Amino acid sequence: MEKLTHINEQGRAKMVDVSGKPVTRRVAVARARVCMKPETLSRIRQGNMEKGDVLAVAQVAGIMAAKKTSELIPMCHPIPLRGVDLRFSEEGDSTLVIEAEVKTDSVTGVEMEALTAVSVAALTVYDMCKAIDKEITVEQTCLIRKTGGKSGDFIRKGE
Amino acid sequence: MEKLTHINEQGRAKMVDVSGKPVTRRVAVARARVCMKPETLSRIRQGNMEKGDVLAVAQVAGIMAAKKTSELIPMCHPIPLRGVDLRFSEEGDSTLVIEAEVKTDSVTGVEMEALTAVSVAALTVYDMCKAIDKEITVEQTCLIRKTGGKSGDFIRKGE
Amino acid sequence: MEKLTHINEQGRAKMVDVSGKPVTRRVAVARARVCMKPETLSRIRQGNMEKGDVLAVAQVAGIMAAKKTSELIPMCHPIPLRGVDLRFSEEGDSTLVIEAEVKTDSVTGVEMEALTAVSVAALTVYDMCKAIDKEITVEQTCLIRKTGGKSGDFIRKGE
Amino acid sequence: MEKLTHINEQGRAKMVDVSGKPVTRRVAVARARVCMKPETLSRIRQGNMEKGDVLAVAQVAGIMAAKKTSELIPMCHPIPLRGVDLRFSEEGDSTLVIEAEVKTDSVTGVEMEALTAVSVAALTVYDMCKAIDKEITVEQTCLIRKTGGKSGDFIRKGE
Amino acid sequence: MEKLTHINEQGRAKMVDVSGKPVTRRVAVARARVCMKPETLSRIRQGNMEKGDVLAVAQVAGIMAAKKTSELIPMCHPIPLRGVDLRFSEEGDSTLVIEAEVKTDSVTGVEMEALTAVSVAALTVYDMCKAIDKEITVEQTCLIRKTGGKSGDFIRKGE
Amino acid sequence: MEKLTHINEQGRAKMVDVSGKPVTRRVAVARARVCMKPETLSRIRQGNMEKGDVLAVAQVAGIMAAKKTSELIPMCHPIPLRGVDLRFSEEGDSTLVIEAEVKTDSVTGVEMEALTAVSVAALTVYDMCKAIDKEITVEQTCLIRKTGGKSGDFIRKGE
Repeated sequence: MEKLTHINEQGRAKMVDVSGKPVTRRVAVARARVCMKPETLSRIRQGNMEKGDVLAVAQVAGIMAAKKTSELIPMCHPIPLRGVDLRFSEEGDSTLVIEAEVKTDSVTGVEMEALTAVSVAALTVYDMCKAIDKEITVEQTCLIRKTGGKSGDFIRKGE
Repeated sequence: MEKLTHINEQGRAKMVDVSGKPVTRRVAVARARVCMKPETLSRIRQGNMEKGDVLAVAQVAGIMAAKKTSELIPMCHPIPLRGVDLRFSEEGDSTLVIEAEVKTDSVTGVEMEALTAVSVAALTVYDMCKAIDKEITVEQTCLIRKTGGKSGDFIRKGE
Repeated sequence: MEKLTHINEQGRAKMVDVSGKPVTRRVAVARARVCMKPETLSRIRQGNMEKGDVLAVAQVAGIMAAKKTSELIPMCHPIPLRGVDLRFSEEGDSTLVIEAEVKTDSVTGVEMEALTAVSVAALTVYDMCKAIDKEITVEQTCLIRKTGGKSGDFIRKGE
Repeated sequence: MEKLTHINEQGRAKMVDVSGKPVTRRVAVARARVCMKPETLSRIRQGNMEKGDVLAVAQVAGIMAAKKTSELIPMCHPIPLRGVDLRFSEEGDSTLVIEAEVKTDSVTGVEMEALTAVSVAALTVYDMCKAIDKEITVEQTCLIRKTGGKSGDFIRKGE
Repeated sequence: MEKLTHINEQGRAKMVDVSGKPVTRRVAVARARVCMKPETLSRIRQGNMEKGDVLAVAQVAGIMAAKKTSELIPMCHPIPLRGVDLRFSEEGDSTLVIEAEVKTDSVTGVEMEALTAVSVAALTVYDMCKAIDKEITVEQTCLIRKTGGKSGDFIRKGE
Repeated sequence: MEKLTHINEQGRAKMVDVSGKPVTRRVAVARARVCMKPETLSRIRQGNMEKGDVLAVAQVAGIMAAKKTSELIPMCHPIPLRGVDLRFSEEGDSTLVIEAEVKTDSVTGVEMEALTAVSVAALTVYDMCKAIDKEITVEQTCLIRKTGGKSGDFIRKGE
């Protein structure tokens, strides 16, 4: 039977040994949806067009969080990120979509970095809007695709 | 019209001035759902009953992340956390529910700390299971309730 | 003769004992000038008026750095910041002025937090513009004023 | 039967709820012994008398580590340190003794901060001397005394 | 006469220049002994067999600390860890032995990472048990062996 | 027209993609001047000749800050530093000059690391002397030279 990785012979968690694995270029894209009241999204959009820009703060927060991934996720390997970008779009009148793309040349993938970036960007939107909308919910935080590495490419079903 | 907080008179983000606000006891509870294949949840459950415990790692990750909240969320005030606890439960055969309760005696609330705890705990579950299930999705990350503070208590609709 | 603080009886550095000192409201304002080619400042200003906003990133960087002050400055006490704000202005056609105001209710002042905020904001401007102007220089990083605390208020000469 | 703290009702670790506990002045002293070849200690002592000072670096490392304690020890509460000092002495010709004293006004004690300070200071000595002595060993890292708090004062037997 | 590394020509500490050194696979193993009352060890062992697992928390703390080594030890180079594992065993009825093995492909060794992992894991055990045993002492924190790198392999005498 | 780097197609900041760029040896030197009262500089100099050494603390602070650069500067890539050194000298009777040299083998330069090192070292001097001289000012923080990388070598005019 397939085994969970990250478990040592004492049945405890470990940071898996990836020494000697080849360095390859790797890319991962993750996404989260931030669902809110239409008025809240409208306010973010306005700020966007002026200077008071919730999304500019979320953008910086997501990028800085990607760099902190291995500090946050206990069994995650520290790797040298080569590029991080976040993009925002809207779905309907009440959903903000956040996508993060992370790149590296390393021995492990950057799925966790992309997921961390969108999660923290989404929480930053929550933080800056919670005075006017406490019901904001983050939905469907997931990996969209990844390329590079031995296990092959992955594209989420339906993407 | 109501204004977004966190925006200064140049239209830029700021960490809101809360000096002089009274210290009160505050509690916040947040929740996230981690949706996965039934086999994945079954494997976590087994590990749980043996020693190789994905949830033990997620528990520690969530607590340590709560303490890092103000490093992650740019406009969030650093506050002295007084207690953090996470609880796991299951819904159906493919959903792991994570709840975090955070307490402080401070001048601002701990919503962001509770949300950060469940988000990072959920990502840790993803990290430890991604070798067997890359489609895991985090759903409905949200604030359930908060008490304490001038703005009064909050309970999410339907809770 | 007056003694340098921070030195213990072995002649080594220590974090000075401030236990038992009263908690008071404290404010500090610091400033730095970032001198660059007029074209560089012009480019920042344009970005400012569109969405690609160097100053929005510098703003976030300065605020987050203020929260990291006690991690950076070895003998600095960790204190709970109550508010941080940065403001940008221009002098002539080639100088960007950055001011940071930091507030706390605590037993020590926030001079170092304000100085750290402007220093890191200035370095962030350097980082984002260095591809077009490597000669950018940060000038006159200093404390402008502070209030609160036993040693009394301070206003820099000439301010 | 007495219970281990830090365990929740699911049998998992938690950060114990200390909200509402009174703020009191607390002091803790910890100690570690670093055992090495006499030549190594002699070299440290010489550096001490010139400027190339292993102990100056260990002093700073210990103080900065004390401030990182709650980032390192998962269930440890973040508290505002009010003072940290380290002192070095020698026993015989091959033992360097490191003592750290940490103070706070808070709801929990600072035992872990004092222990972290001496542990990291000892490791820093190891790091700076390992090129000439890989057998250096850290012995008897322990709490010497603590005062303040509900559980009363503690002095290690024999001190 | 042999010179202490890490000292520059002003007699001050520096991070030694290792640029251009070849990347090789390196492994280090360190160990610490945590001495406690037999009842305390018995309690840890019981927790171990149920779910409330002191050692699971210490395991995570040790792994995360290994990743923080270069933040803690001032002259230590940041390197990309490729694997970290901790193992626990008992000696007699009152000693918990912690061993950490760390691997990298890099230009410097991972002795400090292994030593930091066991030190922080030991302190975590202290933290979670201090309510019932304040006399816990960490003994014989030391490097057991290292392989890789120009200076050749090292095995501690008697191992 | 030349474009600011770090801006994505939505006009927002990104961490520029440097994947696939060749690893080369890179060096950067930065400098800052700390201007103070002659008595303050005299006090630092005395401490320097005894053991209570402001500059030893500033040295450690600068080196540790260099390692934190990518945590402080939002769009800065994390890279493995290979060497960091700081040197102090005096100009006249009231100016302390701080120079930092940083080396790496990587795909991006280390200008920001050198600038961060001198900036934080300068702030550390301020912190340790502010009890006797609040007017201390940091002047002319700038890059002196860099070598390595595709954009070629740079030497500041007049150096």
